[in-house]
Amino acid sequence: TAADAEAGKAKAAVCAACHGANGIAQIPGYPNLAGQNEAYLASALKAYRAKQRNGGQAAVMQGQAAALSDDDIANLAAYYASLPAGGK
Amino acid sequence: TAADAEAGKAKAAVCAACHGANGIAQIPGYPNLAGQNEAYLASALKAYRAKQRNGGQAAVMQGQAAALSDDDIANLAAYYASLPAGGK
Repeated sequence: TAADAEAGKAKAAVCAACHGANGIAQIPGYPNLAGQNEAYLASALKAYRAKQRNGGQAAVMQGQAAALSDDDIANLAAYYASLPAGGK
Repeated sequence: TAADAEAGKAKAAVCAACHGANGIAQIPGYPNLAGQNEAYLASALKAYRAKQRNGGQAAVMQGQAAALSDDDIANLAAYYASLPAGGK
């Protein structure tokens, strides 16, 4: 299935609490996602889901990613990659 | 010591091969760093250095981060955070 940025947007509501409605982090120490490389976003989410990423606030993302399917991850990556970098 | 973006720039020459001279990744699957949250960048580098981050291409960054001091990390984070998001 091709990535679906609109489906990703719908799934992203919970992400916005920390990463911002526009993909710009609301909390120091959390990454901006807007305009990030799509393949990197998918790779990072899969590493959190597999609990391969630790350190810092990784435990938060391990929990968030646990319930995501491969399609969810592809859609979320497409959505955040589509947002303008810097939130402009 | 306060973070020194100029010192970070000097240290960033090796980073540019993958993350771009302007902090925009040259390789699919590698993250853009330009305009990223400074505290997040420092946290991520420390997690790679401690080998807490695995999965994806993390082994590359574990190697790159191994020789970085805390000051190097602070300076690199300040430098990349200072670059305009999106490389503009």
